[in-house]
Amino acid sequence: MKTLSLTLDEIFELAKKTLLANGCDEETATILADLIMKAERDGSLSHGLFRLPAYVSGLKSGKINGKARPEVKKISPSIIKVSGNNCLAPMVLNKGLPELIKTAKENGVAVLAINNSHHMAAMWPETEAVAEEGLVTFACTSYKPAVAPAGAIKPLFGTNPISFSWPRPNKTSLVFDMATSTLAMGDVQIAAREGHPVPHGTGLGPDGKPSDDPAEILKGVLLPFGGYKGSAISLMVELLSAGMTGESFSYEAEKNDNNDGGPPKGG
Amino acid sequence: MKTLSLTLDEIFELAKKTLLANGCDEETATILADLIMKAERDGSLSHGLFRLPAYVSGLKSGKINGKARPEVKKISPSIIKVSGNNCLAPMVLNKGLPELIKTAKENGVAVLAINNSHHMAAMWPETEAVAEEGLVTFACTSYKPAVAPAGAIKPLFGTNPISFSWPRPNKTSLVFDMATSTLAMGDVQIAAREGHPVPHGTGLGPDGKPSDDPAEILKGVLLPFGGYKGSAISLMVELLSAGMTGESFSYEAEKNDNNDGGPPKGG
Repeated sequence: MKTLSLTLDEIFELAKKTLLANGCDEETATILADLIMKAERDGSLSHGLFRLPAYVSGLKSGKINGKARPEVKKISPSIIKVSGNNCLAPMVLNKGLPELIKTAKENGVAVLAINNSHHMAAMWPETEAVAEEGLVTFACTSYKPAVAPAGAIKPLFGTNPISFSWPRPNKTSLVFDMATSTLAMGDVQIAAREGHPVPHGTGLGPDGKPSDDPAEILKGVLLPFGGYKGSAISLMVELLSAGMTGESFSYEAEKNDNNDGGPPKGG
Repeated sequence: MKTLSLTLDEIFELAKKTLLANGCDEETATILADLIMKAERDGSLSHGLFRLPAYVSGLKSGKINGKARPEVKKISPSIIKVSGNNCLAPMVLNKGLPELIKTAKENGVAVLAINNSHHMAAMWPETEAVAEEGLVTFACTSYKPAVAPAGAIKPLFGTNPISFSWPRPNKTSLVFDMATSTLAMGDVQIAAREGHPVPHGTGLGPDGKPSDDPAEILKGVLLPFGGYKGSAISLMVELLSAGMTGESFSYEAEKNDNNDGGPPKGG
């Protein structure tokens, strides 16, 4: 394997050029390339260039609309609903977050509910950006089925990540963003590609038995972090992300669907 | 040990009589005895009569005011703040929840922030009650220091429970309520009293080494559930419960203080 070093600008340009060549318009390609570059900058390989081929295949299949514009609607004094029209999630956030921030500042708390968008990817760039406005933020999203509830052996939940941010005056914000599965799916895929084992307890093989082989887990299921307690939090994410917005539950999404664009919930 | 069976009415009367005899007024004693009776009814021994001696010692010491009335104030269109004036938490909830429900129904989402109250105890009776109004609810509270962050050996966090409820039309609501530590403190205390071990990984002894002896863990620390991920959630609870309301962080509370009355956050 040949290793190539790229600057952040080169990563941005590579991502943008690729997206433009595969059906994204200028605005969509710019927003998405910026997100990919920032993921690489922050060392989150599983959310950087690694994701680009999946975006491209979603664009090529027509599932993702690289030129769509989301619709933003206030459905109650403190709730903003955004319909994505099958655009990529960063487009939705780009339109929805300013409205969320404005409403939260007016009312003390607000919710942004999103559906019909694709590839929520990492959420910390957005929760961090909202924290920079002096607001505490909680975000979550459902995903395709990949995680068995505690005690089960078949997938029902997605990896259902949650992100939280807390502003600190004149300091960087405190931010976390984590799958409610033992590992993020991207990390399991990278381990499988590179051929190294994952910690025991990460998931089950297709036979329902615990495995530390990422290739076996990709054919089987991941487990929730922290046993039945993490499983309860993953369930909460399903209900907040899909149940509250009319989006698909993870178990309703196709296993091989590229759509991981459930809705986040922020405040 | 002699075992005595009590009916739910007898549990209620025993609790109420005890609270009245130790400085509670009629309203406070009735609300609290009802909560204790419901905990016993639902099989949560750690939040039932087991807690009564701690309430009594808090009342006797003057730390808890069994006759205090909380003050309810709307500090923004969607945020309600309740100052407890050192009353017991159920009093605060009794006054604050109707206001929370009204505001959430008007605006789509609302927050109830509580401080200066004692003994939040189990939160599911309240999150369940709010769900019965057709609302989704999230509640959390900080506590005295009892839990070491992942990788540490000294207490910084409380057991910091979270509760979530989801209404279901014509069915019982989905409700969970769990410590973000491996076990609730009450469960460790009961295990110590009854002399049975707790699962490996529950906590550390005073020497900072893992232990399955509850008596050793009571002298040492509990661990967060789910390693660094549960630790992040416990941190989030601290920030939401204490940071957002001006209440003490767990590490600021005295280890032997009876005050576990951090604020919940509901919506």
